[in-house]
Amino acid sequence: MHAEVTWADGRVPAALHEVTERQPLIHCLTNIVVAQFTANVLLAVGASPAMVENAVESGPFATAAGAVLLNLGTLSAEREVAMRSAATAAHEHGRPWVFDPVAVGALAHRTSFAGELLELRPVVVRANASEVLSLVGSEVGGRGVDSLAPSEAAIGAATLLARERNCVVAVSGAVDYVTNGKDVVAISGGSPLLTRITGTGCALGALVAAFVAVENDALFAAAAASAVFKVAAEHAACGNPGPGTFAVNLIDQLASLARGETKRPL
Amino acid sequence: MHAEVTWADGRVPAALHEVTERQPLIHCLTNIVVAQFTANVLLAVGASPAMVENAVESGPFATAAGAVLLNLGTLSAEREVAMRSAATAAHEHGRPWVFDPVAVGALAHRTSFAGELLELRPVVVRANASEVLSLVGSEVGGRGVDSLAPSEAAIGAATLLARERNCVVAVSGAVDYVTNGKDVVAISGGSPLLTRITGTGCALGALVAAFVAVENDALFAAAAASAVFKVAAEHAACGNPGPGTFAVNLIDQLASLARGETKRPL
Amino acid sequence: MHAEVTWADGRVPAALHEVTERQPLIHCLTNIVVAQFTANVLLAVGASPAMVENAVESGPFATAAGAVLLNLGTLSAEREVAMRSAATAAHEHGRPWVFDPVAVGALAHRTSFAGELLELRPVVVRANASEVLSLVGSEVGGRGVDSLAPSEAAIGAATLLARERNCVVAVSGAVDYVTNGKDVVAISGGSPLLTRITGTGCALGALVAAFVAVENDALFAAAAASAVFKVAAEHAACGNPGPGTFAVNLIDQLASLARGETKRPL
Repeated sequence: MHAEVTWADGRVPAALHEVTERQPLIHCLTNIVVAQFTANVLLAVGASPAMVENAVESGPFATAAGAVLLNLGTLSAEREVAMRSAATAAHEHGRPWVFDPVAVGALAHRTSFAGELLELRPVVVRANASEVLSLVGSEVGGRGVDSLAPSEAAIGAATLLARERNCVVAVSGAVDYVTNGKDVVAISGGSPLLTRITGTGCALGALVAAFVAVENDALFAAAAASAVFKVAAEHAACGNPGPGTFAVNLIDQLASLARGETKRPL
Repeated sequence: MHAEVTWADGRVPAALHEVTERQPLIHCLTNIVVAQFTANVLLAVGASPAMVENAVESGPFATAAGAVLLNLGTLSAEREVAMRSAATAAHEHGRPWVFDPVAVGALAHRTSFAGELLELRPVVVRANASEVLSLVGSEVGGRGVDSLAPSEAAIGAATLLARERNCVVAVSGAVDYVTNGKDVVAISGGSPLLTRITGTGCALGALVAAFVAVENDALFAAAAASAVFKVAAEHAACGNPGPGTFAVNLIDQLASLARGETKRPL
Repeated sequence: MHAEVTWADGRVPAALHEVTERQPLIHCLTNIVVAQFTANVLLAVGASPAMVENAVESGPFATAAGAVLLNLGTLSAEREVAMRSAATAAHEHGRPWVFDPVAVGALAHRTSFAGELLELRPVVVRANASEVLSLVGSEVGGRGVDSLAPSEAAIGAATLLARERNCVVAVSGAVDYVTNGKDVVAISGGSPLLTRITGTGCALGALVAAFVAVENDALFAAAAASAVFKVAAEHAACGNPGPGTFAVNLIDQLASLARGETKRPL
């Protein structure tokens, strides 16, 4: 049995309230598929997204951000340089950064690049089970961006990774698990519809960044972000909408939670 | 009179069912405007989109994909290198690839680049009438991404192109025409709203890739993808919604068809 | 007191009608976050968006466009080259171009680059107050993409910039102000929800480009675009929807206005 974090835990709405009040600037180096959705998720909870992903500006910009997100989704030569700069600058200036190693393990180049970025000390790694297994060398590769393993299968690997890298690791799945290498927290809920639209995992990574920007306890920050995302998804899935409607609802429900309207919709 | 393929033809829902069951990995090298919508269209029918568009990874990734999509929408120096690698790797490893030569003919550089990619043997070329006319040298240029000619005007050019390149050519328009150089299949239906939101042609190209990943007959695969897209659009256009709502409905209706809920909505 | 331009001014619907009738080709060099939304906003009013942002094609393509938009959102090395080419070609061929200097002032590199582009003679600069203040050297920097100052605070700077550069400057905010350096026009209305989704300022920049493509008076064109955007936002905000729904409504309402359905929805 793992400890559970849920929306019903008063600290979760309180952390969300901190995000909404303090409007942290979240510097996102992410991908062309999910950039808009990620920005809208951050805006829905009151954070301030900014995507600066060129080689010249990403380092300086990271020093001014509340938190930085690096997402490997659509790598390019220039984004790689920009990511190195941003992670280095964030680390040197004490700014927390969150790592989303999309599809690591599926391709040798990004597996190697992910290893390099891990050296630059992310505060949280958010990934699916296949990606977490790959990061500790337990699996040769996932299948593109989708995990082939349930999140439970990566709890051991996540714990190992968290210890090795002295960071928090969040494994996303039907149940999310977040660990600092010692404690493991489980977050249940959500909806299968989260896997039917693009960018939900990536947007959760950005939400984790927003929470670490306002909350020093990275284990709790990552767990709280997951709990917020899962309860918003549950509300958004009410009535079993199609995936297009679900994506719209999800933004609405995140905003509703952030405004303190926690009542479940019809 | 051309043969017609429609949703009422039992083979079309059966092919869609194959996509949904087999969840082919579709490697998309596409553009910044439509990447999210394309991913959501593929997810709606149960395919697994992955956008890997950098020069280092796109070749290796193509060898593992069910099908590859190359879309010229927002070309960049790096995407061009990545596209050459992906098409070469796909061809060498017997993976089908689909070519969407956006705005070819409007600009000398992409006309030349498109000619180069055609040498790498796409299984299907999906384009509007202006683009097809340009590919066979019948027209100097379209006007950006929009066709100046109706699809009917390009049937001859499509047939010629299909013969020359030994591929299937799908011309999109109010009526879609798909040809292998000998047979021509017509797909009617759809909605004028498809021209009022961005990325519908691009998303259809991705859907064609999903169908060629599970169906060896490329002529039928392209026609079936068109038929699915047109019937989903008809359902999504019910009640004559605005284009924002239509885009959401279109994703919902594709998912509904994929789940076997073929009943027309209110 | 500044002169007001509103939707009720018959010239505004008439200008929108011109856009819808003439379907100007708008060449957008914009960013990965807002490209889809921008394209859908342009399509909603009947304009024809085309995103060509590579170094080789952007110059030649600008000479054929009705207007060009340069938006600094996600700069990259290649986009910078492409922007220089597009602005140069537009200026040399008498094509109007609109400049959206996203986050200028926040980073030295883009402040310098923005200064360089200003030399290439935009017809309209559309920006928030922080950005306008930065362009005249009155402020060290904004905070990412969001303005720290109300639009009123930048009226003087906008007037100065308009005179210095012989262009029109549009300052976006709760009230928009548009000036040619002599006259200042105010546009009221809109909705706070415009700040809760990404890309509304960027999309307004594109809408300004569509209006300058069909209307020689750049002051009026920019003011009319603002008035259309604000009234569409008011309609879209009816019933106080969540931000996800608001984004969908906004596209619908722009299309509704463009079709001449100016009646306020329920």
